[in-house]
Parts: sequence; C-alpha cells; structure tokens
Amino acid sequence: MVSAAVLGATGYGGVELVRLLQAHSAVKLGYLHSESYAGQSVCEVYPHLVGCSAVLRPVDIDAIASECQVALIALPSGKLSMEFVPKLLAAGVRVVDVTPGFRLREAACYPQWYDFEHAHPELLAEAVPGIPEWHRNELRGARLVAAPGCYSTAVLLALSPLVADGLIDPSDIVADGKTGISGAGRTSLKLPYHFPEASEDVAAYSVGGHRHLPEMLEGLQALTDVRVRITFTPHLVPMVRGVLVTAYVKTGASEGALRASLLRHYEAEPFVHVLPDGQWPHTKWTAGTNQCFLAAGLDRHSGRGVVAAVLDNLGKGMAGQMVQCLNVMLGLEETAGLQARVAYP
Amino acid sequence: MVSAAVLGATGYGGVELVRLLQAHSAVKLGYLHSESYAGQSVCEVYPHLVGCSAVLRPVDIDAIASECQVALIALPSGKLSMEFVPKLLAAGVRVVDVTPGFRLREAACYPQWYDFEHAHPELLAEAVPGIPEWHRNELRGARLVAAPGCYSTAVLLALSPLVADGLIDPSDIVADGKTGISGAGRTSLKLPYHFPEASEDVAAYSVGGHRHLPEMLEGLQALTDVRVRITFTPHLVPMVRGVLVTAYVKTGASEGALRASLLRHYEAEPFVHVLPDGQWPHTKWTAGTNQCFLAAGLDRHSGRGVVAAVLDNLGKGMAGQMVQCLNVMLGLEETAGLQARVAYP
Amino acid sequence: MVSAAVLGATGYGGVELVRLLQAHSAVKLGYLHSESYAGQSVCEVYPHLVGCSAVLRPVDIDAIASECQVALIALPSGKLSMEFVPKLLAAGVRVVDVTPGFRLREAACYPQWYDFEHAHPELLAEAVPGIPEWHRNELRGARLVAAPGCYSTAVLLALSPLVADGLIDPSDIVADGKTGISGAGRTSLKLPYHFPEASEDVAAYSVGGHRHLPEMLEGLQALTDVRVRITFTPHLVPMVRGVLVTAYVKTGASEGALRASLLRHYEAEPFVHVLPDGQWPHTKWTAGTNQCFLAAGLDRHSGRGVVAAVLDNLGKGMAGQMVQCLNVMLGLEETAGLQARVAYP
Amino acid sequence: MVSAAVLGATGYGGVELVRLLQAHSAVKLGYLHSESYAGQSVCEVYPHLVGCSAVLRPVDIDAIASECQVALIALPSGKLSMEFVPKLLAAGVRVVDVTPGFRLREAACYPQWYDFEHAHPELLAEAVPGIPEWHRNELRGARLVAAPGCYSTAVLLALSPLVADGLIDPSDIVADGKTGISGAGRTSLKLPYHFPEASEDVAAYSVGGHRHLPEMLEGLQALTDVRVRITFTPHLVPMVRGVLVTAYVKTGASEGALRASLLRHYEAEPFVHVLPDGQWPHTKWTAGTNQCFLAAGLDRHSGRGVVAAVLDNLGKGMAGQMVQCLNVMLGLEETAGLQARVAYP
Repeated sequence: MVSAAVLGATGYGGVELVRLLQAHSAVKLGYLHSESYAGQSVCEVYPHLVGCSAVLRPVDIDAIASECQVALIALPSGKLSMEFVPKLLAAGVRVVDVTPGFRLREAACYPQWYDFEHAHPELLAEAVPGIPEWHRNELRGARLVAAPGCYSTAVLLALSPLVADGLIDPSDIVADGKTGISGAGRTSLKLPYHFPEASEDVAAYSVGGHRHLPEMLEGLQALTDVRVRITFTPHLVPMVRGVLVTAYVKTGASEGALRASLLRHYEAEPFVHVLPDGQWPHTKWTAGTNQCFLAAGLDRHSGRGVVAAVLDNLGKGMAGQMVQCLNVMLGLEETAGLQARVAYP
Repeated sequence: MVSAAVLGATGYGGVELVRLLQAHSAVKLGYLHSESYAGQSVCEVYPHLVGCSAVLRPVDIDAIASECQVALIALPSGKLSMEFVPKLLAAGVRVVDVTPGFRLREAACYPQWYDFEHAHPELLAEAVPGIPEWHRNELRGARLVAAPGCYSTAVLLALSPLVADGLIDPSDIVADGKTGISGAGRTSLKLPYHFPEASEDVAAYSVGGHRHLPEMLEGLQALTDVRVRITFTPHLVPMVRGVLVTAYVKTGASEGALRASLLRHYEAEPFVHVLPDGQWPHTKWTAGTNQCFLAAGLDRHSGRGVVAAVLDNLGKGMAGQMVQCLNVMLGLEETAGLQARVAYP
Repeated sequence: MVSAAVLGATGYGGVELVRLLQAHSAVKLGYLHSESYAGQSVCEVYPHLVGCSAVLRPVDIDAIASECQVALIALPSGKLSMEFVPKLLAAGVRVVDVTPGFRLREAACYPQWYDFEHAHPELLAEAVPGIPEWHRNELRGARLVAAPGCYSTAVLLALSPLVADGLIDPSDIVADGKTGISGAGRTSLKLPYHFPEASEDVAAYSVGGHRHLPEMLEGLQALTDVRVRITFTPHLVPMVRGVLVTAYVKTGASEGALRASLLRHYEAEPFVHVLPDGQWPHTKWTAGTNQCFLAAGLDRHSGRGVVAAVLDNLGKGMAGQMVQCLNVMLGLEETAGLQARVAYP
Repeated sequence: MVSAAVLGATGYGGVELVRLLQAHSAVKLGYLHSESYAGQSVCEVYPHLVGCSAVLRPVDIDAIASECQVALIALPSGKLSMEFVPKLLAAGVRVVDVTPGFRLREAACYPQWYDFEHAHPELLAEAVPGIPEWHRNELRGARLVAAPGCYSTAVLLALSPLVADGLIDPSDIVADGKTGISGAGRTSLKLPYHFPEASEDVAAYSVGGHRHLPEMLEGLQALTDVRVRITFTPHLVPMVRGVLVTAYVKTGASEGALRASLLRHYEAEPFVHVLPDGQWPHTKWTAGTNQCFLAAGLDRHSGRGVVAAVLDNLGKGMAGQMVQCLNVMLGLEETAGLQARVAYP
C-alpha cells in the first residue's frame, strides 16, 4: 500500500480525496493536512465520514515525507502550493497538485492571471498536465503532476480530438461553461454563493477572461500550428456539483466525422464516453464519479458544430482526476478507487 | 375599463395574466377560459389567488365577443390558436396571442417547425410582432399581435440594436440560452421536468434546431441585408423562472460602442435596462416582473463580443409582454399593471 | 403622504420594505439607512431596483426626525434597535421595529435569550405587539410597535383562536417549524447557508430553545390562564422564502369545531385565510406577499389536532406585517401597498 | 456468487439496487425486470450506467427461478408484489420485497390502507420485517423479507430503543416527517412533483393518516404493552433524496439517558450512528449511502424529548436496506456492497 498525504483535506476537493482513498485498494490515507481544523479528527469536521478518526495536522514537510510517498494537493491557493511543492519534491515526495500553482507552462502568465510571480519556472517545465487521456505516457513515473481546472478538463476532453484531427478551426472556438456552486469551494463564503442569492438564478461571471483560459489554450495549442482562440464564458447554475461546457466550433466535417473522431480517441478510455447521435449529456449523470460524457452534432441552420462535455467538477474535474493521475503515476490499475457509478437521481 | 378574455387561463402564462390584470388600472378580467377546469373558480384551482371567484369556462367565441373587447391567448398549442383567432377577429375581438400560431411570417415554416399547415396565411401578414421596443407604431391600433417566445425576446432585445447599427456580423452569431423549468408549462408532466430529474442538473436540449429560431431570424433579418445566421442552443437550468441568453458575436466595435448602441436604442424604454461596464445580469433580478437587463463586453483574448440578456420567461417573455402589447394596442399607459419590482431574493 | 425612514435598508427585510413602500399610495420612502453601503444609491446595491436612486445614509437621528414621521427598523440586531428607538421616539418619530429589541414584555428575558441587558424596560411595556389580527385597537395611534418574528407570527396566527376559544390544551403544544434560508439574512455569510451545504438538505437547528419561543409563549399566555407550554423545533429547508409551522395539539374538539374557530376569528381579515377541509397550505402560495394560509384537522389514529400555517418570512413574517402595522398605526387603509398576489409558480 | 433478480429495475429504487449490486463482492446481477423498458439495455435507459449492457425483460417467473437464487422486488405496487411473491417462493426463489405487499402482519389492514384484499395472509405471518438492527436473527435464513418504508425505518430506528427501554410514553408520540421528492418514484409524473411546483415549497401531505403508519405502530407495539399512538405527518421538501423524522416524545428521562439508550442499542451497528450532545443530523450526510444518523435531546422549556433520524429514502430507506437484508439472509458479510460514504457536498 502506498501512503498518500492530502494537503487541504477539509476543502470540498480534499474531503472528496479522503472519501476516494478510503475505498482505494492500493493507496491508503496518510498525513491529512488542514490549518483551520488542525487537531480535530476528520469525522468531527465531517460527521458523515463516520469512523474516519484520522487527526488533521498543520503542514510539516518532514513529517509528510517520513510517512508518505505521494502528496495530493487541494489547497485553496496556487501560491501556497508553489511554496510547498518544491520542498515536498526535495524530500522525495511525489506530487499531484490541483491548484493552479504548476498548471501553466509559461511563468510569465502567473502575474497576469494569478497576481504572483512564479518562483520555480523550472518546475513548470517538469510538471505533467494531469489529463491521463492525453498525457498517459508522461504521467507514468512523473514526479509532479499539475491537474487542470474543471472547465479546462471539460474543454480539453471535448475539443482535443477535433483539433488533433484537424476537423475544426482552432482560431474560432466559443465555449460556454455552466458550473454548480461547489466549484467556489467551502472556505470562501461570498455573497454570490449564499443560498438565497444563488438559488433560482443563473448568471455569467468572469466574462472576458477566466483563469482557466490559459490552460485550455496551452492544451489545444500543443495539438495544432494554427493559433488557438477561445471565447470562454462561465456561468453559475443553482446546483451543487457538475460542469457542462457547450462548445461552438467552425467545421467542414459531418456530424458522423466529428463523432467518429471522439470515438476513435476515447474508445479504450474507461472514463470518457461518447454519446450516440441525438443524445446530449446531463451533469446529473456524473455527480460523485470520475465519468465524463461527450456529444457532438451540427446546428442544422448555421452549420456550426456543437460539442458538449459534462463532468463532476469535484470528480473528473478535481479529486477523481487526481486519483486517476496518481494511479497512472504509480503504475497502479488506472480505475482503482474510481469505479463508482452515480447515485441516481 | 376594457374587458379582456384570457384563453388558457390556468397554464402558467395564463395565471400570470390573471394576476397582472387583477392589478391593472384600465383593464379588467373578463371571460376566463379553461377546458380542463371548466366550472371551477380560479381560486379553487389556485388557492393563492384568494378571492378570485371568477368561474372558468370552456371556449365560446360568441360569449367572449359579447363580454370582451380583447382576448389574450395563452393556449398550450399554436394549432388551437390558429383555429380560434380568426373567429375572434371576425367577432370583433382584438387579440394578443403568445402561442406560435401567428408568430412566423412565412406559412411554409409551419409544417417545418410545428407539424401543421397554416390555414390563415393572410393573418400571418397582418400579425404584428409583439415587441413594443421594436414595433410600437405598428402595435398601436393593431387587431392581432403575435407575442414572440421568451428566447426570441431575449435574443431580439439583445442583438437588434447591434445589427441595426451595423456593429456586428449577422452571419456569425452564437446564442447560448439558459431557461428555468416553468417554460415547459404546467400541463405536460414529462420526465425531464420531474423534480428528481431536473434538480441538480443542467443539459442542452433541442440542439441543432429549436422552434424559436425562425422568429429570431425573421426579427434580425428585417434589420439587415446580410444573411442572418444564428447557432442557438437552449439549456435547462434547475430554477423555476428566468431566461438568460449569452450571445457571442463577431465585431470590430469597442465595448463602449456596443454599449452605446444598446443605450441609445433603449434609453427611453421603461422595461429594458443596459448595465454599466463590468456588471452582468442575473435572472433573479427579473422574476415576476416585466424587466429585461442587458450587458455587453468584449472577450479580452479572442476579441469576440459577448452580449447577455435576462428576463422572466413568464414575465417579459410571456404574460408581461402581452400586457405591455395590450397597453400599446389600446392606447393605454404602456407601464400600466407592470410596475412591480422583483421580490428579492 | 407620510414619509417613512427605513433603518437597515439593504438587508433582505429592508429591501423588501423599500419595494413595498415604492408602491404604497400613502407612504413615501424617506431616509434610507445603511452603514455598509452608505453613500451608494439603492439601485447600485440592488440593480433590480432600477431607477431607485435614493442614496443610503449612515444613521443620523436628527436628520431622520426632520425628514420622516415614522421609522421602520429592520436592523440586524435588537441591541442596535434598543439604542436607536428611544432617540427616535424622543425626537417625535413613531417606530415599527422588527428586531427583537422590544418584542419581549419582560426585561429579564433579554439576558437569557439575547445576551444583553435591556436598558429601557419602560418601553417594553409600551411596545404594541405587531400582529394586527390580535392587537388592532392598540396599534391605532401607537408610538412603538414591536413586530414579532416570522415563526411567532405563524404560531400565533394558527393557535391564538384555538387557545382563546378553549379548544386545545395550551400546556401540551408541539410546533414543528420549517423555514427557507432568507430568514438567515444577507449579511451573515455562515457555512450552513452556503449553497453547497444548504442545498439538498434538511436539518433541525436551535433544538431545545429557539429565540422566538418567548414571544410565542407571551402571545398565547395572554389568552388563557392555563400555563402555556410549547415544544418548538425549527428546521432549515432548501428554499429561499417561506415558513411553515405544523402544530400538534391535544384537543377534544372536532375538525369542524377547530376550523370554525379559525374561520370565526379571521373571516374579516384581509390577509389570513382558512383552507377548506382536506386542503393543506403551501409556502409557495405566499412568496412576496402578506398572505397567511391556515388549515386544521385531526389525526385519525391518535386524535391529536394538526394545525398548519404558512407565510413568507420576509412578507407577513417581516416587511409585509410591518407595513400592515404602519397602515393601522397611521389610520391608513390597512391593505395599502400589500395587495400583490404571488407570482406563481 | 449468488445471482439476484431485480423486479422493477428501472424505478428509482430498482436502479439503485442495480448500482449497489454492480459493486457487490458476493452477489451478481441476474434477471433484470422491467415492463415498460423490456428489450432495452439498462444503459440505454440510464446512460450514466455506462457499460451495463444487461437487457431488461418482462416478468417470467420460470426464467427468474432458473437463473437466480434471490429476487429483490422494487415494483411500484404492493398488489403486483402480492401476485409475484408466492410464485417466486414456490419456485424456490427467496425474496426481499420493498413494496407494501407483505409489510403488514394483519391482512385486515390491506383493504383499509391499500385498497385491496390480501390473498396470502399466511405469508404475512412468515415475512420478516426488513430492519436488521431489530430482526437480525429472524432474517438469517428467511425466505421472505418485507423491507419497511423509508419513514417507518426512520421512526423505528429512532424510537425502538426508547420504547424497548421504557424511557418514553408510547401512547403520546408526535413524528414530523420531511422527505425529498425521489420518494414519489419515477413513473408517476404528478403535478406536485413537477419542478416548478415542488421547487421553493414545503407542505404537509397525507395529513391524518399516511400509509407508513401501521408499520410504525406494529414495529413499536411489539416492544411494549402500552398501546402505541403516533401522530405522524409527512412533508415534501424541495430536495431529491433524504428523510428526516423529528419525533417529540413524553419522557421522564434525562438527555443522557435517552442518548445512552440509543448508543447501547446501536453501538455495534455498522449503519446506525448516534450523534454527540448538541449535534443534529443532516439528510445531506446520507445521500447515496446506507447510513442513518440519530440524535436525542430535551426541550429546555417543555421538557419533551426530541429525537431525530436521517437517512436516504433510496438508501437505508430502500435499496441499501434491501441489500443489507439480503446479506444477512444469505449469511454474507453484512456490509458488503454498502460501504460507500456520501459524496459531499
């Protein structure tokens, strides 16, 4: 059994990692980090995790290194991650990080998108993007994995095949994102996430420049020489979990060709499923799982391609994907700990 | 006081009309039609309308004509409306119709979009589109008004100024729609609207060809010589009321120019409001009202214009707009009966 | 026109007062107080109140007194109210207060339930309980009205007739309360009201002693010599507005007698409605209104009486009731500004 | 591996059984019955059950008996179950039935509560109540298990210890139930479960006599000589899954004694958890699991005991409990297939 630390174990992503690892056959829960709840047990903070008596601890790199072989980082800020990761790596602990701390290849993007200078550009080059469907070989044996954001995962899974196969125009992509509110996390109690405000409402946010954009651009740009351009607008939807991205693409391909491209790239994938003609995916199919469902079609009137992807922002968009990356990184069965289906409805 | 009939008075649009007319200073409730609840009083069907003891009656054109000067039609089908409207007009009753019965100018569109042949193409030519902001003069004195669908209203209010002013490319519009579930009506109890299915979910529907598309196209095409092309995909959001359309447009104009165009067209409008730079509208601001909020900006990365419109699908998208049209048609104060603000939150 | 000040105008109760007074025929909005948003206009804080350009101001008793004849207090704390009210009264401003500041007759209850000593016990004796249905005569001409909490209003409207008529045993009442989350207010962003926590959940809170209990006890005790005992447990329900209280009472009366008692007490009331046999009320019927619906029946098996009351916690449970009290206090038409029906669904 | 049939496999309870058995280590999915979807595969009906290609079949007792050792019945009606169960038993198939078909001991109750005469009173005597915590020994080796309703499970788990220990007065129990809407099932698309009606609402239903009452009475009456009387009123809450019962009991015991009774009865139970002093359970803790959380306290003012129980109506209230019973019946590990924790939030 590999012992895994979880940093930021009481955020929504962290507690989902704890839940997944509790049921994992080859990885066990090691050091559980929390600053705000240090000294309490997990089941004191989350009574539903009955019996999980592990005690939360403040950060201590040496203790982590002495107890764990890997660390899963679900901290609330990329800056914190940037500080801890080099120390963990130096202490011999391999890392899967879901903060933005090591997501972007170009250090110059950090001040622009995250308001801090990146102190470890050399690690940006080393960090492997945490999408096993597109980086499986690099993940095997990696020291540092940077799991992408939930929106980026949805966009990249939906569009990478079509860009790689040259079926769509990468310079003219519109991606309209919808997300549940758990994406806002647990610690930042802001007014827009207050139940009376968020309920019975839908609205766009971060219009004109959301932080996940550079990840999407880097991911797709790696597959084409054409300059990639994405107009991405996210929206807040009154539900807890789930991301839906509806992408509108310029294409000369037929519906069948679009779908065939998706099928070809994902036919052997355990977590990415392409829907048959005429069926469109629901976020509800994915809650609590590592599944992603894709669909593609053409608008009859305009001829534009429409491609949709759904996933659980805390599952395939966060904790599930981290565990999948961990499995690949460590040479374990890739689906270990991730085979649950959604409790429907 | 003008006496108004409501046909389909127990659907969600119908009962909203009843509520609005109860509080109208110059129009009173006349003949209230319902087939399914004929013989019962309104407050038996809807106990919250306490004191509204008017009895619902099956359709009777002569009785309507003898009691009412106008009829507001909120029937569940355009085919029914196509049957009743000519009789009402012949009997001297003026009509505001929110079904698709008379929305499309071209009779040939009916078999294509609604599965029936249109028996009264001459009335299609006469019917005035029910958007006072763009057809106020035609509405004055009209006999027959065809109120547009909720999505069409949102798209047309958002984009008509920009098309009319030549600021965007009408041939390349992407419109992503989000709606609450009351848009599905009250009588059709289908699985997707069952609470356990609809809650905690978002999904696209009618991808590639929604019935509101031809109305949008006709509305915008009237403002430009360039062939209009819209890729429109609607989505179902777990909330009761509200429509948000996020439109993505090709433009060479600045943010300021886009917003100035909207402001110029709507500055004197009582129900259409353009938000300041950086603010984006929430559907929650509109529930139960006849208000529409618009915002426009540019995507910093791609340069595409982003234009958003919100309204209440049962308010400005249905009953509110019908009352506004009625007011204009009859030469009444345009805001009569429509001045309520949303009960927030 | 009477000019009314609103203290705490940007909380959920305050903004509802603003909305109601905007549409009031005999009262106009005067001094609008807010500490957190002082200097901004109402429509900057709440864009849906389009056109409401009144500027929010910090507290200034002299200015209020020079501009307004009455003050409606919707501050977040009873302690603040206890401080301001004597000054307002001294300056000749009459007050309707919805904080707990003057709700309890016995000063000794304050340290026990609200953690502060009451500095003005003489005003506790003067304050008229703000339930027009039971205190209409005292309200006429009152200087100071203490509007009860939302739960208290529901319990008192449901049970006062039955206690007054001696139909139930006042010493053995169980009252199970359910409320929407807007009752938690807007300023206190606590974890239980965070959308991901509150959604898809129901739970009891304040078990064994909720602050509204002493108001309920005082209200019912005034109607009987038997010692009143209520077991009251409130629950948080994932909806925005609405209170439902289901009360279980020991009774020897028939269903008909229970219902007759309610009907007799409320037959002339414009806002309290008793449902016919077999119909039970929905909170949805009341959102945004000053309506209250009551129902009563017997449990066939146990013989206990079951009495239910619904109202909008921000309507009849707060702002609506305050305006109703204001109308009575000033000798205006009691229903002025309160005739709106719910926008359904 | 034991092969299990599921009758009614496409209802919400049935599909949850399919999900649970997919992950069960000692039971495999056998005959999957559905009338409405016969001929389709499970994943055609429920795309989220990706890869579950088993084909749904109409009922065929011989085929079930030839393929399966046990049958799990989640049919929409007890009458259907009453028809199938004797045939299954005769064919040597053991049964866990969650319909009301065999829940009540007294045949005379069926016409009263379910509008049909019971044709097999001898099997009513044989059927073991499906609550392992109270009938574990009888379940071992049983041929026929009648799993109780979700409300009954909650009431019986909460109150059985207190009745058995003589700590409360069984003749004066008030139980206020709250449930999510999935309890209404998937096939009956009625207006109260239509999203626009159910959302933003709470209301009582079946006041004065809900069908689960006789099960509760039988269950508690078996533990005491005092005549049991329960006033039970259920309420519909706008959420998908979850049951909360808040019970109000007459007691002379202290809070500590109440809690100690619960702890003593459940300390070795894997699925029933007693919360510490001052903590009250949330339905959200249980969604998708077989967990039940209990809490007990005293109302400070009235002295009544307050006892709360939460569970997932489709989990411990239905499919989870059925699998738990199956495990006990077959001598398998009782927690097999049931160890998942809730995906929170």
